[in-house]
Amino acid sequence: MEQNMEKILKKVSDKTIKIGVIGLGYVGLPLAVTFARKGICVLGFEKSEKKAQLVNAATNYIGDIEDDVLVQVVAKDKSLTATTDFSRIKECDAVIICVPTPLDQFKKPDMSFIENSCIDIGRNMKHGTFVSLESTTYPTTTENFMKPILERESGMKENNGFWLCFSPERVDPGNKDYKTENTPKVVGSSGVEAQQIAMAIYGIAIQNLYPVSSPRVAEMVKILENTYRLINISMINELALLAGKMKIDIWEVIEAAKSKPYGFQAFYPGPGVGGHCIPLDPFYLEYIAKNFNFDLTMIEAAGHINNLMPYRMMNKISYALNSHGKALSVSTILFLGVAYKPDIDDPRESPALLVMEEVLKKGAKVLYHDPYIKRVQDDHGRLYEGQELTDDLISSVDCVVFTTNHACFDVERIVAKAKLVVDTRNAVKFVQIQNNKVYKL
Amino acid sequence: MEQNMEKILKKVSDKTIKIGVIGLGYVGLPLAVTFARKGICVLGFEKSEKKAQLVNAATNYIGDIEDDVLVQVVAKDKSLTATTDFSRIKECDAVIICVPTPLDQFKKPDMSFIENSCIDIGRNMKHGTFVSLESTTYPTTTENFMKPILERESGMKENNGFWLCFSPERVDPGNKDYKTENTPKVVGSSGVEAQQIAMAIYGIAIQNLYPVSSPRVAEMVKILENTYRLINISMINELALLAGKMKIDIWEVIEAAKSKPYGFQAFYPGPGVGGHCIPLDPFYLEYIAKNFNFDLTMIEAAGHINNLMPYRMMNKISYALNSHGKALSVSTILFLGVAYKPDIDDPRESPALLVMEEVLKKGAKVLYHDPYIKRVQDDHGRLYEGQELTDDLISSVDCVVFTTNHACFDVERIVAKAKLVVDTRNAVKFVQIQNNKVYKL
Repeated sequence: MEQNMEKILKKVSDKTIKIGVIGLGYVGLPLAVTFARKGICVLGFEKSEKKAQLVNAATNYIGDIEDDVLVQVVAKDKSLTATTDFSRIKECDAVIICVPTPLDQFKKPDMSFIENSCIDIGRNMKHGTFVSLESTTYPTTTENFMKPILERESGMKENNGFWLCFSPERVDPGNKDYKTENTPKVVGSSGVEAQQIAMAIYGIAIQNLYPVSSPRVAEMVKILENTYRLINISMINELALLAGKMKIDIWEVIEAAKSKPYGFQAFYPGPGVGGHCIPLDPFYLEYIAKNFNFDLTMIEAAGHINNLMPYRMMNKISYALNSHGKALSVSTILFLGVAYKPDIDDPRESPALLVMEEVLKKGAKVLYHDPYIKRVQDDHGRLYEGQELTDDLISSVDCVVFTTNHACFDVERIVAKAKLVVDTRNAVKFVQIQNNKVYKL
Repeated sequence: MEQNMEKILKKVSDKTIKIGVIGLGYVGLPLAVTFARKGICVLGFEKSEKKAQLVNAATNYIGDIEDDVLVQVVAKDKSLTATTDFSRIKECDAVIICVPTPLDQFKKPDMSFIENSCIDIGRNMKHGTFVSLESTTYPTTTENFMKPILERESGMKENNGFWLCFSPERVDPGNKDYKTENTPKVVGSSGVEAQQIAMAIYGIAIQNLYPVSSPRVAEMVKILENTYRLINISMINELALLAGKMKIDIWEVIEAAKSKPYGFQAFYPGPGVGGHCIPLDPFYLEYIAKNFNFDLTMIEAAGHINNLMPYRMMNKISYALNSHGKALSVSTILFLGVAYKPDIDDPRESPALLVMEEVLKKGAKVLYHDPYIKRVQDDHGRLYEGQELTDDLISSVDCVVFTTNHACFDVERIVAKAKLVVDTRNAVKFVQIQNNKVYKL
């Protein structure tokens, strides 16, 4: 492999390396574009014909990519091409996997995307290929799950035919300061050669790399980062519910706690935990922990709180209506915001949808408005059509619920027109917790 | 009360106000000294004759106070005097309570110190006294617990005879950057007058004040800050135990996660949670939550993890000895560090003592060395005498356990001389997790 290593390192230094990126979603496409902008020839692999066509037409569908940058690399430089033909993996010197790792409905990791990628790579890669996984997964995946599949399908041996690495994506959709290129990247490979190659390849595109001693350490890093967030959001959600009962404004408490100049980081409550990382990642760890006869009580407690949040939010809405003498079953509820966080257009794992479901179950009529999302489908296939936010609509419904605090909401107008407001996001700042019109979390 | 308010505000502005501080411990004495340095006449109230004498002799017993500053305010400026005569509360315009709020052995708040302070104040204060509590306690204490006692004992009414405030101490023993004067202080009073007076009085001594709308918000702020810490330390302790089983070095993981430039704050594992705030404060909230029929599952899970940590650390030591063919019951174990955090001399609520207890129960001989603590007594009254850390001692014991990572420990020498090392603090960095001599958490 020493010769192969020389070869690939030379290709890095003279920029003739060809990199394949599997999965052109919110992780893979920005990564592919970041390499392509450095003049590297990138082949993007996509199972979705539609996505591949969009990329090849330089039509952008990822919020964190600037449209003209995509036009530049696809149409002008021609450094990025998308394909649905996975046999073209054989053209690549390096393949980076950026596929989803969802949980199934029993919160068990669905490893099929990684598995299929490994089968595609194993069957098609040439001798001396560098393979890296970026998808969040449980520690030991790279060494114990990927490696056997790659070896079986390729007939080659790790470190003697191909190299293996784990380097977790840290994409934070909508973050204005940190994009793929300037977010430090943790890199952990199986073996010294693999790590040297990994550092060289990622070093082309990423400003700061943080090498660690093994793939499993890198896998654990990502889980720790998101478990930290899950635990803290869950804690503040629970404290918010208690504070509500005690007539304490939890948002005032959080702002005041932030005045402590050390040892505190603020998290904010909401109707649940959303997005495609925080609600999922810790459960990968829980999955593998079971294999070690180990219970993760903090993650379990967090899961417990978050499972109940949509139900508790439904209760909150029901109680607010009750104080106006109305039953949920004969009310129309307007939800404002179905994106999982402010100012983005992504409704995946959005807690708003779960609250809407609970409210619907109790017989209410459910409407929503989101300036970034025109229609949305929940996990059960229910399709909702977004409403225009007219004064008439606001004043006609029985209750308006803030579920996402998009900056563009004209909160003052909405509160003025509405009969009743339930605010799960502190959209309505500086209003008394219960003035009989606005109810906070 | 308007006249009284004018009077007290005038005394603040011409610095003739006399301030009483009840409790001259690690919170009260630094606060008293901070006021006294500003030329304010401060009367320190102490139940302990010995502490009062030490203060009046300008003999310092608090690490965060510089010796010559105490000499300055006590012996030269004579602005600070300590007394055990609580009837002298009548001399004071303002009284600030800085007494302990421990938990009893059933983890129920022991409110007797606050209660007794309120009785002393109520019986002795003059009309127009400002009363502030700094001790950490459950939200509603100031309004629902203190106020009735003060009114009953004084025959006066709140805001018509005396004013009431809660302003949580944020003392971080050993913190070189943030002392009493420059740590922002949250202030929440009952009523507008009280808050105006509170801001004026604290403004004399503290650089930055953060006003909040009520005492209960201020009470909740302190609990949130320390619950945040408890939850995160507990989480990382649990992850460390799992990581140990998975042959992942949790400290390497934490350092790598710190390379994320947003949304992460590092906490480090150890043999448990120590000090007089973090292991206690969240349980105040749990106590009052029960009154609202509310369970705090995150705090319960955290309590669960920490209750088990000393036991798990004992197991760790036992397993390490086992791998050397030795039983705990016939071994001598040397613990390094009984302070609850590095480089301080305070063993209160130190997890080291709990691990020592578990090891002792299994029949081992327990020794300890701490450069800052010459002897120590645990909660059961067991007295331990510190050992000198000679080469002979290190090499003669069966196992050396790092329980506090004091910077002054010569780790290299200790590891070289020891037969076996269990490292609960990553004192031995860069050593393989299991090289058959050093065992990490």
